[in-house]
Amino acid sequence: MDRDVLVREVGLRDGLQAVDTFFPTEAKKAWIDSEAAAGVHEIQACSFVPRSTFEQFSDASEIVAHATNHQGLLVSVFTPNVKGAERAIAAGAHRLGHVTSASESHNQNNLRRSVGDSMDDFERIVALRNELSDPETTSISGCVATAFGCTIEGAVDPDAVVRLASRYVELGADELVLADTVGYGNPDQVKKLFVRTGAEVGDIPIAAHFHDTRGLGLANVCGALDAGVRAFDASLGGLGGCPFAPGATGNIVTEDLVFMLEAMGLRTGIDLDALVAVRDILEREMPDEPLHGAIAAARVPKGFAVAN
Amino acid sequence: MDRDVLVREVGLRDGLQAVDTFFPTEAKKAWIDSEAAAGVHEIQACSFVPRSTFEQFSDASEIVAHATNHQGLLVSVFTPNVKGAERAIAAGAHRLGHVTSASESHNQNNLRRSVGDSMDDFERIVALRNELSDPETTSISGCVATAFGCTIEGAVDPDAVVRLASRYVELGADELVLADTVGYGNPDQVKKLFVRTGAEVGDIPIAAHFHDTRGLGLANVCGALDAGVRAFDASLGGLGGCPFAPGATGNIVTEDLVFMLEAMGLRTGIDLDALVAVRDILEREMPDEPLHGAIAAARVPKGFAVAN
Repeated sequence: MDRDVLVREVGLRDGLQAVDTFFPTEAKKAWIDSEAAAGVHEIQACSFVPRSTFEQFSDASEIVAHATNHQGLLVSVFTPNVKGAERAIAAGAHRLGHVTSASESHNQNNLRRSVGDSMDDFERIVALRNELSDPETTSISGCVATAFGCTIEGAVDPDAVVRLASRYVELGADELVLADTVGYGNPDQVKKLFVRTGAEVGDIPIAAHFHDTRGLGLANVCGALDAGVRAFDASLGGLGGCPFAPGATGNIVTEDLVFMLEAMGLRTGIDLDALVAVRDILEREMPDEPLHGAIAAARVPKGFAVAN
Repeated sequence: MDRDVLVREVGLRDGLQAVDTFFPTEAKKAWIDSEAAAGVHEIQACSFVPRSTFEQFSDASEIVAHATNHQGLLVSVFTPNVKGAERAIAAGAHRLGHVTSASESHNQNNLRRSVGDSMDDFERIVALRNELSDPETTSISGCVATAFGCTIEGAVDPDAVVRLASRYVELGADELVLADTVGYGNPDQVKKLFVRTGAEVGDIPIAAHFHDTRGLGLANVCGALDAGVRAFDASLGGLGGCPFAPGATGNIVTEDLVFMLEAMGLRTGIDLDALVAVRDILEREMPDEPLHGAIAAARVPKGFAVAN
């Protein structure tokens, strides 16, 4: 494998979730095709939520069916509940993402259920996966949201994060994600929490999910890298946010993340120029949606070479 | 001293240098007064360049005379040559900043002289300072520009940076600055170069000067912190750039830097709310000038407390 770090594109899920107007199905497919061609290894392609809640994801099954045509592309999806997981497995998704918030208030606001109920759901999703598929074909990711703070509760106890992460692992998660859902984290806190979580949950991949709400997104990536994290969620153009968390603007910018990692000598397997070019699709389809990021405008440094 | 990290405001110099319209003298004074009141310990207040070159700094002596009225405020200035240093010492500046580029081409483009000639100038500035003042009253800072890359030459040899830094120290610099003038650096490179420079030049304060051209400004601060750096240049609202380096947009944002440092438990001595409020002066005087930064819009996290 010629990759040191996994960069997972989540713009089609976390990004589009924050966009009111429907992003056309064909444009979603073009986005996936172009990023896959640029070397992106994993794309969170959609969310299996009730159509009545998110019209944006009404084409979820069609998107997954299309994305899984790409050889070598890992197609992950967001599945908040058992019903969504069932549809996602039927559609052929490779990885199901489940989210529970370390903050009870945020979980109630976001998913309309208690943390305990969310974890019961997760248990049922694992059972369903084991019944209909297997971990090799369909892995399951458990994401601890608001791991670094919550707009409702403020500080979040690291103990609560580690407890929830451990519970995810006990119940059968194949991957963990610690998410700074509302952009509250700082590099020092990030490093410490990833180190501690890694030490407590043992040998399971742990990914980081950062929002750039307060400008510390890539600094927090540095904190996570220091802790040994080698998998990061990001959105093309920094698209995204959390509709239930006021002030939570976009994810970290995929293309800026790739630039930083490659500049640091960490191979992503992604062609940065080709990735930046994918922004054209977003600009064409959503001319009024602000795209973020520095590298698209500044271009790479003179003489810049990707890591190898 | 209740401060772990020195945050030096350079917006009045590096920021205004990139602004075409004259920023009124009274507004400059208000900017300095407000930042001093917010707890900023050092402000690079102006540049002693020929009036014919930079109308923006035609009020340099008046600005310094005003700024030095603030008890406890360290008033630093930029002095590219002996003539400028003479005026700066006469005005009562506490710290003279001299810049030489590690890239010969950048030095020629930026200062219209060779690296060797720049260092000869520096030697004369030190002699002048020793004649007219002393290191306690007037310290001298030597800044290695394009230390992390150059828009003309591309990669810059770390050996050249360390050589130039060592030469500055030999000639009598009281502080060193390594500057990523054009925003080419990455956290790994930053950490390595500060560690190496620190090891080679011995016991002299070394500050970092980053531009956010490619979005890595605060990530690079993390790299420098890892190397033990505890002094950073920054511009309010990310104002600034280098008129001689195409694509080199603003300095890192002072208020975002202060937020990150305080969040990490590093005391800056600066009242963040008061600092953010100083942006009003810039917005009022330069309504068409884009201000950058995340914390002014997103505000601090709920329950956020400064380091103590």
